[in-house]
Amino acid sequence: MRPHTVRLSGLPDHVTVYEVGPRDGLQNEPAVVPAETKLEFIERLVGAGLKVVEVTSLVRPDRVPQLADSEELLARLPPTPGVRFPVLVPNHRGLERALANGVREIAVFTSATESFAQRNVNLSRAGSLKVVGEVADRARHHGLAVRGYVSMCFGDPWEGDVEPAEVVSVATELLAMGCGQVSIGDTIGVATPGAVRALITQLLGAGAEPSTLAVHFHDTYGQALVNTVEALRCGLTTVDASAGGLGGCPFAKSASGNLATEDLVFLLDGLGVNTGVDLAALARTSLWLAGRLGRPSPSRTVQALARGFELE
Amino acid sequence: MRPHTVRLSGLPDHVTVYEVGPRDGLQNEPAVVPAETKLEFIERLVGAGLKVVEVTSLVRPDRVPQLADSEELLARLPPTPGVRFPVLVPNHRGLERALANGVREIAVFTSATESFAQRNVNLSRAGSLKVVGEVADRARHHGLAVRGYVSMCFGDPWEGDVEPAEVVSVATELLAMGCGQVSIGDTIGVATPGAVRALITQLLGAGAEPSTLAVHFHDTYGQALVNTVEALRCGLTTVDASAGGLGGCPFAKSASGNLATEDLVFLLDGLGVNTGVDLAALARTSLWLAGRLGRPSPSRTVQALARGFELE
Repeated sequence: MRPHTVRLSGLPDHVTVYEVGPRDGLQNEPAVVPAETKLEFIERLVGAGLKVVEVTSLVRPDRVPQLADSEELLARLPPTPGVRFPVLVPNHRGLERALANGVREIAVFTSATESFAQRNVNLSRAGSLKVVGEVADRARHHGLAVRGYVSMCFGDPWEGDVEPAEVVSVATELLAMGCGQVSIGDTIGVATPGAVRALITQLLGAGAEPSTLAVHFHDTYGQALVNTVEALRCGLTTVDASAGGLGGCPFAKSASGNLATEDLVFLLDGLGVNTGVDLAALARTSLWLAGRLGRPSPSRTVQALARGFELE
Repeated sequence: MRPHTVRLSGLPDHVTVYEVGPRDGLQNEPAVVPAETKLEFIERLVGAGLKVVEVTSLVRPDRVPQLADSEELLARLPPTPGVRFPVLVPNHRGLERALANGVREIAVFTSATESFAQRNVNLSRAGSLKVVGEVADRARHHGLAVRGYVSMCFGDPWEGDVEPAEVVSVATELLAMGCGQVSIGDTIGVATPGAVRALITQLLGAGAEPSTLAVHFHDTYGQALVNTVEALRCGLTTVDASAGGLGGCPFAKSASGNLATEDLVFLLDGLGVNTGVDLAALARTSLWLAGRLGRPSPSRTVQALARGFELE
């Protein structure tokens, strides 16, 4: 069953889906997925129409063994004109690996809170921002595009509520460092739409253009999709999502899966918002991957497909 | 973690949660749940602050063995002033059983489509409406309050898209028959917010007061919560939900769980919309019931609690 398309005013005509499944999804799988499977996953995502796929993270292989095959993966990426394959880079060492492997676009990350900066990268928030600024600078010097992630934008397991002003401060600094886009992350999934609107309003009020902001919601409490719609109503047009709803954050106790790309595309298809993504092909990809991972997809749409319900 | 409360304009101050878990949830469980467990479930729901709990359905015990203990359940309901315990009634025989067991409020149901009317109650849509009208009439004559359900309001597995005019016709007829409220059901979960707004706008345009309408979304494709918010933005203030996201429809191939009450209450707590429901007590109830049913709750919020993440 496909949704009956009925438009709703106040939404954009087109949304860019920034697919994070191969990186944010697979880095949190208990098992290490073979590079062969990852490559097929990425090829199928591109085949389903995704134009931006974050393919891996150049973190220390001993820290995240799930992504230890990054170099192999980068070397074997399919030639796909018009598709971007950004790579997460935590530090100078990661950037060097990115440059050595022909990466054209990187993503850097920091936290809105001190506690998570300490726990995630073992630096103060200011220290983390300094490193990120240097990495972004070097990357741009080499002609790479840079995206910035801000974690814990709506709540933090150690600090509780997070003030929008804290997020605005970090996000505007990342933009000033030359990040072409900053992704506002609800790492622990506690945001609701009022908080989303309040924060985005402050970010836009501080001078950020809507196109320079993205949202990255986790579905810990089932709020990811409703928060996404509020972000679109605020004028944003880039949404991070993970095929099949895979993912989480290995260093945040409370994180669970990302917004499922299928549930997002089902919504946007229903609203007549163009994504260029073929929902059925995408959901079949996640169903196939769930079989490889040996566990059901958290995406409701993929679960419906798994129950034998066609999407065409 | 509790959501940080940030209000959003255009939403009501208070929402009535119409809890359908004991009926819509448990009627679809593969196993028959003992009456003792159902009673504890209902008592715990009331303890968590729910003021309307649909407790059972007076269908034929041979057709839905899960609800064969309806009379026992009704006889043993706790005395709880201020709490309503509506009962689903499919026909005259069901109404007689309701009257014999002291029920004060019933819910009747019909379909927006011919195909589902035929398959669900083996009558034409007009034939079903006629029976429902007679039952509603008799019930009101005995002083009972009557609610009406309309199934397949956004799509039908046999007929595809459903025209809003078809739903408006059935819903306004139910209101004219004396139903105090009509619940608009997305039985197969295909609605998206544009379709929700379009239908509710037509219903209100046809003269229905917002307070006489409720929404009943299934989460087949993960759209239940985002659709609910759109209904609230349209002025509605009653939302059907099922504790733990239990439920479905035994006669519609594609149905899956209802909107989870916990995910709804998490959202409304975050938006500062009062429901009177204690989220932590409710989620603990669903976690307890999931243990009894021997399978995890589909509710994201209950899953978070199951992973050891407190809600207080």
